[in-house]
Amino acid sequence: MRHKVILDPAFRRMEEIFHPDDLARLHAVCDVVWGKDEPMPPELIDRECLDAFAIVTTRWRYGELAGLPKLRAILEVGGRHPSSAVIDYDYCRANGIRVLSCAPAFGPMVAEMALGMAIDAAREISAGHDAFRAGSEKYLWDGNVDTFTLYGETVGFIGFGGLAQCLKPPIAPFGCHLLAYDPWRTDQFLKDQGADPVGLDDLLSRARVIFVLAIPSTENRAQIGIRELALIRRDAVFVLMSRSHVVDFEALTTALVEGRFRAAIGVFPQEPMPADHPIRRAPNVVLSAHRAGSIVGDSNLIGRMVVDDLEAMAQDLPPWHMQVAEPEIVARLP
Amino acid sequence: MRHKVILDPAFRRMEEIFHPDDLARLHAVCDVVWGKDEPMPPELIDRECLDAFAIVTTRWRYGELAGLPKLRAILEVGGRHPSSAVIDYDYCRANGIRVLSCAPAFGPMVAEMALGMAIDAAREISAGHDAFRAGSEKYLWDGNVDTFTLYGETVGFIGFGGLAQCLKPPIAPFGCHLLAYDPWRTDQFLKDQGADPVGLDDLLSRARVIFVLAIPSTENRAQIGIRELALIRRDAVFVLMSRSHVVDFEALTTALVEGRFRAAIGVFPQEPMPADHPIRRAPNVVLSAHRAGSIVGDSNLIGRMVVDDLEAMAQDLPPWHMQVAEPEIVARLP
Amino acid sequence: MRHKVILDPAFRRMEEIFHPDDLARLHAVCDVVWGKDEPMPPELIDRECLDAFAIVTTRWRYGELAGLPKLRAILEVGGRHPSSAVIDYDYCRANGIRVLSCAPAFGPMVAEMALGMAIDAAREISAGHDAFRAGSEKYLWDGNVDTFTLYGETVGFIGFGGLAQCLKPPIAPFGCHLLAYDPWRTDQFLKDQGADPVGLDDLLSRARVIFVLAIPSTENRAQIGIRELALIRRDAVFVLMSRSHVVDFEALTTALVEGRFRAAIGVFPQEPMPADHPIRRAPNVVLSAHRAGSIVGDSNLIGRMVVDDLEAMAQDLPPWHMQVAEPEIVARLP
Amino acid sequence: MRHKVILDPAFRRMEEIFHPDDLARLHAVCDVVWGKDEPMPPELIDRECLDAFAIVTTRWRYGELAGLPKLRAILEVGGRHPSSAVIDYDYCRANGIRVLSCAPAFGPMVAEMALGMAIDAAREISAGHDAFRAGSEKYLWDGNVDTFTLYGETVGFIGFGGLAQCLKPPIAPFGCHLLAYDPWRTDQFLKDQGADPVGLDDLLSRARVIFVLAIPSTENRAQIGIRELALIRRDAVFVLMSRSHVVDFEALTTALVEGRFRAAIGVFPQEPMPADHPIRRAPNVVLSAHRAGSIVGDSNLIGRMVVDDLEAMAQDLPPWHMQVAEPEIVARLP
Repeated sequence: MRHKVILDPAFRRMEEIFHPDDLARLHAVCDVVWGKDEPMPPELIDRECLDAFAIVTTRWRYGELAGLPKLRAILEVGGRHPSSAVIDYDYCRANGIRVLSCAPAFGPMVAEMALGMAIDAAREISAGHDAFRAGSEKYLWDGNVDTFTLYGETVGFIGFGGLAQCLKPPIAPFGCHLLAYDPWRTDQFLKDQGADPVGLDDLLSRARVIFVLAIPSTENRAQIGIRELALIRRDAVFVLMSRSHVVDFEALTTALVEGRFRAAIGVFPQEPMPADHPIRRAPNVVLSAHRAGSIVGDSNLIGRMVVDDLEAMAQDLPPWHMQVAEPEIVARLP
Repeated sequence: MRHKVILDPAFRRMEEIFHPDDLARLHAVCDVVWGKDEPMPPELIDRECLDAFAIVTTRWRYGELAGLPKLRAILEVGGRHPSSAVIDYDYCRANGIRVLSCAPAFGPMVAEMALGMAIDAAREISAGHDAFRAGSEKYLWDGNVDTFTLYGETVGFIGFGGLAQCLKPPIAPFGCHLLAYDPWRTDQFLKDQGADPVGLDDLLSRARVIFVLAIPSTENRAQIGIRELALIRRDAVFVLMSRSHVVDFEALTTALVEGRFRAAIGVFPQEPMPADHPIRRAPNVVLSAHRAGSIVGDSNLIGRMVVDDLEAMAQDLPPWHMQVAEPEIVARLP
Repeated sequence: MRHKVILDPAFRRMEEIFHPDDLARLHAVCDVVWGKDEPMPPELIDRECLDAFAIVTTRWRYGELAGLPKLRAILEVGGRHPSSAVIDYDYCRANGIRVLSCAPAFGPMVAEMALGMAIDAAREISAGHDAFRAGSEKYLWDGNVDTFTLYGETVGFIGFGGLAQCLKPPIAPFGCHLLAYDPWRTDQFLKDQGADPVGLDDLLSRARVIFVLAIPSTENRAQIGIRELALIRRDAVFVLMSRSHVVDFEALTTALVEGRFRAAIGVFPQEPMPADHPIRRAPNVVLSAHRAGSIVGDSNLIGRMVVDDLEAMAQDLPPWHMQVAEPEIVARLP
Repeated sequence: MRHKVILDPAFRRMEEIFHPDDLARLHAVCDVVWGKDEPMPPELIDRECLDAFAIVTTRWRYGELAGLPKLRAILEVGGRHPSSAVIDYDYCRANGIRVLSCAPAFGPMVAEMALGMAIDAAREISAGHDAFRAGSEKYLWDGNVDTFTLYGETVGFIGFGGLAQCLKPPIAPFGCHLLAYDPWRTDQFLKDQGADPVGLDDLLSRARVIFVLAIPSTENRAQIGIRELALIRRDAVFVLMSRSHVVDFEALTTALVEGRFRAAIGVFPQEPMPADHPIRRAPNVVLSAHRAGSIVGDSNLIGRMVVDDLEAMAQDLPPWHMQVAEPEIVARLP
């Protein structure tokens, strides 16, 4: 018997997340319902979900879990596990419903961008490019007064989850010394990963390159504030990739406008940012509108993970590719 | 008996190339003569070189080799082996004089810059930064109309010498398919290195990212001209790192001004470039004044290689760190 | 508040599984009850388990789960998840009790032994040693009539679980082509792991070295029988590491006594094997009494995994080191 | 114009060293003379060598170098560079004649055997096999009283040349701490290779596994004698792969007969060894008649290196695959 899968990925588009080959694999093992860019109409939801085995979605709008007796998997394709206010994870566990997230799919894209922006800031690529356009470029040693390479540097990861795992391989060839701060991981885990577990203050004051890779939680809002920013080395590069939630952005802006350290920023507290926001004029900052995880083609990894796991479950095997909801973690999601 | 080493690195400065620890290692095993930033005075050359075991220099100005009977090694610290018009390599071989180059010391710095500029061009980091400054930044998918990641792409290396060897490790995590064109290497060598040996035209027409890594030779001046540039894919990134000699730069400029493909350029036929050169206005080009290999600290690798090899020779062992002159190669140097 | 942990590892000994440092880490975060080599006395079990947070054991003898309201984790240190006849996994899931296995702790020891025995059989190390002792050794080419190296060979993994993961790294330097058969994994998973997913017959008929790495299930008893053994190449080495359950051992013995192919055997259907069992006389077989996973010191990895996970749970974080029970898998355990 | 190559590999056989594909590649670029298993007849040598570009041989018997004006390369396929008593290396250098050795071709085969024998000795595979045959095998912990795994052990390499380079990758997954003693390498070289440079005594007294990988020199005959053997740990495994020259074999035999430490021996001072030599009865020793480097198929790497380099030279490029003669090293060859 084939499983029924509700495929309702709006706000994402089908072609954004599914390579045709993966979609064909999915149709080969499951009965797919809907599968369009538009949100599934409520009346269709009412009719089709009753005997659905799995629902692929970015936002829960399928009613009470108790009304979906055949449901065994919720595959979220938005980018992170829903809060426990939205999904009753205890009910899911008690009733054999897996809640899976596509979050790791964004890791490679964002890791490449994080590395690229870190090199850009350390080597002053954007700044040097602007100078060249303006006719004020400097050659050889004159062009490298404050630059540095990543080779052998001390690098700090704030947050050591899926994104950190994706950044480790492209950072590895540079032979950096890794510091890690992550209250969701034990020291022993971080050591096993090849990083020195340190406190946040220690990391901020020691690292030459600081990658902010933590996801938002109920505990880390604006965790990096005025006091913490003051610990950062003058010769450091602060790379803010995920998420601005973790930083007191106005305090960061003030520090950068004053030229306290260098930065590369890929996420913002408002998007778009106000036209007159002072971060736009801060020196020694590389700015990128939130777009590190939105590359057509690479985003097909979302669909591949979804199909890999539905294929496994269709064979009565455990899923293996998407991220499983751990109770201790989802309890801390905002 | 300790060997006498003439240390005359001008135009390079002592602290540019020597870490104090390496200099101490050198003094521990050899008698060092001169060792200052200024060129060694001619009268001192006349007096000291007669019984020198080794000369460390950027430019040959020590007279006839036949007048230096104790000489066993010339260690060039400029960046490439002297032409055979300057050094009589046959004489050196016949008389047991090694000619060693520090060229590989620049590899890591330049490889990082090549990777950073390639990611910059592929992800539009500098362009996105400029847009953000101008208040015209685009978020999410709108900000990624023409961008791509390196993951799984076909990448071409034009020249597969020391610089390519340094670029391979940081490129490896991206899982690219490697094409290589290098008339100084056999196909079997390139295959052993994990690259597909291809002709230049084939490489230019297939690669999504093209790295020009070849050193100048008597055979490759402007080898990439109008016809070759026309082969490049419209969606490609052309990364010119070493050297502009290899490219018809005016033809390249024309192609880029027309927006034929994207590029990242780190070397130029004139340095500084004329203020009104059209390359400064070309769209989709990341420009960096020739400075990829001039980072204080990283440049100490030059001195470490020099000392590693003098230390080995002081123990009557073969040198192992600097680049040895191969007759077939030096014969092709301009 | 500190958690109470019942530490009752008999038949294992405390020093077998715990390095003193790990035991100290455990005492630092939990209240440990018992922790001796002997089985915990029943009256103590009755008294202490009622408010236990976790039980570390090799065999369930702690009564009804419903009678243990504070229990959040069962950490088995025998070597595999208990059958669902012993533990009610549904109850555990519904009540937030994790069931964790130390199975991966044996992987490195067994993988080294598997590699060593495979090289031994392929290079005829034991056979050559016996010949040398007997004075009939052969030198150079005469000593290598039927030997081969692993470099570039086609190698098949029957079972691609934790043990296969541990064998992959030490096999990797030999550049083998990997075939994998595992009905508990999808093809896509195996491809992601760098192996070609194939059917059992295909694997047996193609591989030069066959590693049996599958754990016993309700589905694989004597799965490799007369018909399957007949598919194996005459020049193959069949390495039986885990478990003899998977093979019709008498059929295997017959094939080996006839000299059909070579083998290395590290597990047996009876232990000790009968003194007159014909496998003892089979030619071209390397025999090792079941002992690949019983090395003092290496076995401390069991304790380290236990402590790593109790430490994490003591910080209200998910465990990360031991193997989690997947419902689809435990349902198939015998 | 095609180069003439004298192909006279006796005592090696053509099919031993050449894969048909490599031979075809050779014929495609050079005029091959002879190419048979038997030694080339003297009259043919006289006639053909005069205008030979290269000679492939195991033993020099082609007269005075001065009588071979076109000669540019001697490719030895015996296994090591000829002594400077046989070849006038100074003449070769002065006249542009390269002397290349196939020595590295044996590295992979011998490295696998070294690893296999080390695991065999550490895990008692041969000994356990013999016990099993004799009906006295021991299971589980009883079978592992003195065994150990390589994981995390301190491993010493005596000699850090081509063979060590081939042993490094298959040893790497075991996470060993590497000590190295090699008077032909500087400390800095060894550090760059990831090994701790140490003195011979230090290595012998610290390493759990000792690999003797040095080639014979005029300086290392019986360098490991009674005094040095007494330094070895009682729980160590001494792996003698290349060459017995380095060891006082009678002293080693005495130590092993007394059970001082464990060993794996793959080379002997006499081959075959006398039937009554006491090493045959020493306990805890794995013996392998000198055969680690004589595997048909794998030996084709010799031919591949030869052809790779002749192919390069035929294109007027430097050879890259065979080992180049370094003056300081060949001067020390016996």
